[in-house]
Amino acid sequence: MRAGPSQEEIRRQNLGALLRYVHIHGATSRAELTSALGLNRSTIGALTADLANAGLVSEGAPKETGRAGRPSPVVQPEWDRVHAYAFSIEVDRLRVARIGLGGAVLDRREVTRPRGLVAAEAVPLLTGALKEMREAVPAGTICVGAGIAVCGVVRRADGMVRLSPHTGWVDEPLGATLAAELGAGATVTVGNVADVCAFAEHARGAAAGCDNVLYLYGDVGVGAGIIAGGRRLTGHGGYGGEVGHMVVNRDGAPCECGSRGCWETEIGEYALLRGSGRAAAHGREAVLAVFDAASRGDARAQAAVRQAGDWLGFGVGNLVNIFNPEMVIFGGTLRDLYLAGAAQVRSRLNSVALPACLEHVRLRTPSLGDDAVLIGAAELAFDRLLADPLDAA
Amino acid sequence: MRAGPSQEEIRRQNLGALLRYVHIHGATSRAELTSALGLNRSTIGALTADLANAGLVSEGAPKETGRAGRPSPVVQPEWDRVHAYAFSIEVDRLRVARIGLGGAVLDRREVTRPRGLVAAEAVPLLTGALKEMREAVPAGTICVGAGIAVCGVVRRADGMVRLSPHTGWVDEPLGATLAAELGAGATVTVGNVADVCAFAEHARGAAAGCDNVLYLYGDVGVGAGIIAGGRRLTGHGGYGGEVGHMVVNRDGAPCECGSRGCWETEIGEYALLRGSGRAAAHGREAVLAVFDAASRGDARAQAAVRQAGDWLGFGVGNLVNIFNPEMVIFGGTLRDLYLAGAAQVRSRLNSVALPACLEHVRLRTPSLGDDAVLIGAAELAFDRLLADPLDAA
Repeated sequence: MRAGPSQEEIRRQNLGALLRYVHIHGATSRAELTSALGLNRSTIGALTADLANAGLVSEGAPKETGRAGRPSPVVQPEWDRVHAYAFSIEVDRLRVARIGLGGAVLDRREVTRPRGLVAAEAVPLLTGALKEMREAVPAGTICVGAGIAVCGVVRRADGMVRLSPHTGWVDEPLGATLAAELGAGATVTVGNVADVCAFAEHARGAAAGCDNVLYLYGDVGVGAGIIAGGRRLTGHGGYGGEVGHMVVNRDGAPCECGSRGCWETEIGEYALLRGSGRAAAHGREAVLAVFDAASRGDARAQAAVRQAGDWLGFGVGNLVNIFNPEMVIFGGTLRDLYLAGAAQVRSRLNSVALPACLEHVRLRTPSLGDDAVLIGAAELAFDRLLADPLDAA
Repeated sequence: MRAGPSQEEIRRQNLGALLRYVHIHGATSRAELTSALGLNRSTIGALTADLANAGLVSEGAPKETGRAGRPSPVVQPEWDRVHAYAFSIEVDRLRVARIGLGGAVLDRREVTRPRGLVAAEAVPLLTGALKEMREAVPAGTICVGAGIAVCGVVRRADGMVRLSPHTGWVDEPLGATLAAELGAGATVTVGNVADVCAFAEHARGAAAGCDNVLYLYGDVGVGAGIIAGGRRLTGHGGYGGEVGHMVVNRDGAPCECGSRGCWETEIGEYALLRGSGRAAAHGREAVLAVFDAASRGDARAQAAVRQAGDWLGFGVGNLVNIFNPEMVIFGGTLRDLYLAGAAQVRSRLNSVALPACLEHVRLRTPSLGDDAVLIGAAELAFDRLLADPLDAA
């Protein structure tokens, strides 16, 4: 029902498209931008000048192309002058990074997080690390805001952490608290860790160019970041993607959410540790030790991996029928479960998924590694800049 | 990454926005269009003239507003001159309708479909009904194409019916067959019945104005039409929404898809008929008789409704966790199951869904009734017209 955009909106869209292109692809010649964006040379020149005046890009010496004719100057993002802060609240650790336009990690801090650390204790650790990092930032830089990834249920509108069972947080106004710390006018966007990783892999990782992607992230719990038709699926309040609480086994174990037999009770940390006879252990290292033991022939660990792999394939089959994705990415501990239990995953997936829904699905591991969550959290902040470069900068 | 639109694209978008507005809202004054679309009076005048020249709208006498000043002329869709054909392939019947711009059913035919009727036998029935209807169409009208709703898995690209277990159709090129029948240049779009109903309810029914909607449709099988972020979720090949094949009960009954314990085996026709001691019956009337018997105190029918209602709430709970919708609509026989088993649906839904995902969810029945599927099928055809009115007309 929406009418076409005004001239001002078109200019904003063009500025955003150019800046996004160099943010993702790095230094690019004006000639390449002309063909990639479908705009003429003079428009590219004017947009570049506006972005350069705002301190967001600079023009560099032309690349040697070996072709005849005047070489085209190169437009590059101001990667060390324009940055965002990225926070990651994980079950076992807290991470803070400063990430430049273009996606490079410029600085980082990591703090071990004792389990059960409440938000009131965690926030000072985060702000302390942030303070240290800010003192080291050179003068004349532009901070475009901050993004935070949390393993929990996050309200999109204001970054309220509604429920994070595995950190024990309930209704924590994390977005507001960190915005206050960053100072006047700072914008902080909070997202679920799976959504944030999906965003990063879609922007510049394994799912670049894919329009329908399920990114599954596991640690203690399990969540999904979903890209449908090229856009992030958030749901009405921002709570979409809670696939870990899809009940798969009505007779299953109680879940921390209050229900029973949720998918995460079958494929999350507890299932692997309990199933392999390590009920007293916890943490990512302990889970990785299960895969290691299985690979060395430990029969209980192998049985736990087989069973969890079967449940992983089961849930993925259900989601493939619902979403008909072109790619499923296994992140966090699900990466290791997928690799160790691939036979069970594929066998159960094939039996549950409809052939039509499954036929073009590629199963993948993340390509951005451990930094995906930080890069994705920064992308939340850059996304605002890219939507309206001259206003947000 | 997309740059802003060209002048030509903006004009197309504006023409589409104006035409869509009167298609949905009916006759509208120029003054109302100016404020609803955010365009100035002269632009609205020029767009209206272009659409009128193409025979898509006409201008009528002003409505009496009771206000001072020159009344504004009314723009109305050419509802009896511009039309689409709508086909609905159901388990028990075939329907064909001619639907005018604006959504009114201008003509209709219905044929009972014996179960097991193969596509080669059904298509002549459809084309025969179409032929009859075309003979009655007045001269000088514009047909914008046809839309077909099928209870089955449909490939978006070409309207191939990949699998329709309950009609027994496999890999039927239904889109191509009916396009050939309609003649040179006719465009036929094929969609799953749940997608088509969701589209209709979102455009002009219970879900108008809602951006995140699950429309669940049941007859023999169960499917979903999903609106996420205001757009139809189709998946990579167009097969998204096969929620009836989400496995909910690993120990459940075999499903026609080859899997076991699919949601539709617990809430579809067979579950209700078998559970109420009517295993030999089939068809929509037989299912409705179960609800009727339950309301009159038949204990077996009541037990079947309670059990299916519980499974309905269970699956909706899973989907609410995955999608965080603002509305769930129960269509087809699920409408009656929801109404008869509301206590079980709500109780199980509350136990499965996370409170944050559930908090703004409204449960609804369709507002367009039995015609939703025809109206939605026509919307598939009108959607192409609205995307580019002067090219498609």
